[in-house]
Amino acid sequence: MSKLIGNAIFGQSGGPTAVINASAAGVFTEALKQTGHIEKVFGAANGIVGMLNEVFYDIGQEDPKELELLKTTPSSALGSCRYKLANAEDDETDYKRLLEVFKKYNIRYFFYNGGNDSMDTCNKISKFLQKANYECRVMGVPKTIDNDLYGTDHCPGFASAAKYIATTTMEVYLDARVYDTGMITVIEIMGRHAGWLTASSVLAAYKGYGPDLIYLPEVDFDIDKMLSDVKRVYDKEKKVIVAVSEGVQTKEGKFIPELVSEGDVSVDAFGHKQLGGTATVLANYLKEKIGCKVRGIELSLMQRCAAHLASKADVEESYLAGQTAVRCAVDGMTDYMVGFQRPENGAYTCEIKLIPLDTVANTEKKVPREWINKDGNFVNSKFIEYALPLIQGESQIAIEEGLPRWARLKKIPVTK
Amino acid sequence: MSKLIGNAIFGQSGGPTAVINASAAGVFTEALKQTGHIEKVFGAANGIVGMLNEVFYDIGQEDPKELELLKTTPSSALGSCRYKLANAEDDETDYKRLLEVFKKYNIRYFFYNGGNDSMDTCNKISKFLQKANYECRVMGVPKTIDNDLYGTDHCPGFASAAKYIATTTMEVYLDARVYDTGMITVIEIMGRHAGWLTASSVLAAYKGYGPDLIYLPEVDFDIDKMLSDVKRVYDKEKKVIVAVSEGVQTKEGKFIPELVSEGDVSVDAFGHKQLGGTATVLANYLKEKIGCKVRGIELSLMQRCAAHLASKADVEESYLAGQTAVRCAVDGMTDYMVGFQRPENGAYTCEIKLIPLDTVANTEKKVPREWINKDGNFVNSKFIEYALPLIQGESQIAIEEGLPRWARLKKIPVTK
Repeated sequence: MSKLIGNAIFGQSGGPTAVINASAAGVFTEALKQTGHIEKVFGAANGIVGMLNEVFYDIGQEDPKELELLKTTPSSALGSCRYKLANAEDDETDYKRLLEVFKKYNIRYFFYNGGNDSMDTCNKISKFLQKANYECRVMGVPKTIDNDLYGTDHCPGFASAAKYIATTTMEVYLDARVYDTGMITVIEIMGRHAGWLTASSVLAAYKGYGPDLIYLPEVDFDIDKMLSDVKRVYDKEKKVIVAVSEGVQTKEGKFIPELVSEGDVSVDAFGHKQLGGTATVLANYLKEKIGCKVRGIELSLMQRCAAHLASKADVEESYLAGQTAVRCAVDGMTDYMVGFQRPENGAYTCEIKLIPLDTVANTEKKVPREWINKDGNFVNSKFIEYALPLIQGESQIAIEEGLPRWARLKKIPVTK
Repeated sequence: MSKLIGNAIFGQSGGPTAVINASAAGVFTEALKQTGHIEKVFGAANGIVGMLNEVFYDIGQEDPKELELLKTTPSSALGSCRYKLANAEDDETDYKRLLEVFKKYNIRYFFYNGGNDSMDTCNKISKFLQKANYECRVMGVPKTIDNDLYGTDHCPGFASAAKYIATTTMEVYLDARVYDTGMITVIEIMGRHAGWLTASSVLAAYKGYGPDLIYLPEVDFDIDKMLSDVKRVYDKEKKVIVAVSEGVQTKEGKFIPELVSEGDVSVDAFGHKQLGGTATVLANYLKEKIGCKVRGIELSLMQRCAAHLASKADVEESYLAGQTAVRCAVDGMTDYMVGFQRPENGAYTCEIKLIPLDTVANTEKKVPREWINKDGNFVNSKFIEYALPLIQGESQIAIEEGLPRWARLKKIPVTK
């Protein structure tokens, strides 16, 4: 493949994670080194939206120390978006605009960091640019706490959220059993359609301080069955901890909050139903049925932004994913997402695997049914073997006056 | 004062904290060293309830390494209680029973770890034992995330919760502003009557990543005023973060959830109203009035049990409080709570101060009005100067396989 010289742009898309900026650090640091191929490195404000509007920053003017701090700075430093591109067959407006921008700024390297929807965006742009005969290397950098991206063993962002969930569940476990009275705690964990995050609570149980019951969206949710599960544990132990995914649905396809207030759910740009309130609804239901003290806890945004509790393995792998995307693109590869695989046997190591973008886009990977017990209310040792290596090591964040010191980017706009 | 030889008992009471076990470690380690005064060291199961029921453990049989791990193990290792003693003038039953137990086990040292209600219990027992001419040294060890104990500069447990709140608010701040759309986030923080914890969110603002508005229970809450405060920030910034205490009340004395569902609040043993739902109620209200995306976040139990994010200063001071209680009792002191003071001028250091139990019991210390701005919607630099030294240093918890390794006590029961 011929050497391609031009500028590079990087964008962050979808929900933030504790380590999405580690991938940004990987892309930026490597791209700034590749001076024989990449002339300028741009960071797009709010992903594809910034690219369409020509709002991007000149990363070459950033202090390298601050780029290093990006590794341990949570959320999306450049801003994110949930902008959905139309199919090019239906409407080429955005694609033509992007091509115009790419030409204007001689953008020849396009790196996009996100989950399912973002890889779909990345794939569509890649295919359009190919069709338009505009030479540009396009690489997807995976990111999602949901861990539901197809073709990769796991996704950057998942392990840090899993470590947060396991650690926090362990802490809540101790807190929820200090009194000599009965208590039921319902912990609501993120995950629209895949139960990877909720399943991670089993790591707390593996340590002896975990949930008694785990409900994932992979199994139809039956509220009567849950009540009898909870009663069984309660009658024996007087303390029950339930981990439940925000995405569990009845076999009729209803989410828990819908069981209470039918049709009262708003819809976001991608057509996902906005969830929340599952813990509260279930806690109130159990209080009414069992009559003891209950507490509903939603791990909310904390589970995806807790950089102070990130997995060191995850930080390093996220950085590696960004770095690899740049190296591969410079070596002539395009139209791939960087993924991970692990050895079939033996100790865990993270190996790189390139996955064609069109096979990733819009395919969701779920927790295998055989990793969930027959009753559908717990997760077995196969999940523990899978997840445990990913949460190893404690990320060391920079501290100033007892509080996090995060990257401060200058964000110098590229002149239009 | 004559030398007093006998056994010692220690109990934990009230809500757990991230560092209550650090005080237990301080009491146990020191008491086990004082072999010339203290023969056996007992830990009561569930505080005063375990003492009344003769359920306590022989701490001398615990592995010293596990007692050391108690320093970084959250929640109450011995179990807690919210048992309220009657006034001795009204009903002496429990007091007589305690005296019987103390005599049976030759308990001559009584250490009790808790907040306002627990210091009231401690004081009542101390006075009864004096009246009964039973020689026993009684020392209170302070504990409360609420920081509302009278007579001490601050309370063990507060600073770790404050550090959790400040760090988490910083993380949520970044997460809540990744999209280029409007968003209001309401963070609900613990504190029934005093706003110390909610005020701690200002430390995040001090770092540049904090709430725009802070509402404490020290100021009457006006929902219309809050709406206009939020609108003002929203119109300018399109992002608003509100930190609100679960305990804010209207001038008519109504909590936020009561504004919605009058009279629908259960009452616990101490007559406190069970709160919760403040963030959800306010978020829904703001969504209706302003129409943008909102998110209500309750920091729930996490803010009081997050040992992984404890303040090192707090861990050390909590240990010191327990250790000091034992040393003072052995030196002949009784009927005091161990408290802290800081120098009037110069750098922060933690100095010990003994406070008579009867002046502590049932008096609540609130955030001074002059530390809150005139508008009642933010906290000023006086609070920052006060709180910042307390959250310094990062507690290093023991880690095993990427997750916390907590103390495992044998809890060998003392034979009746």
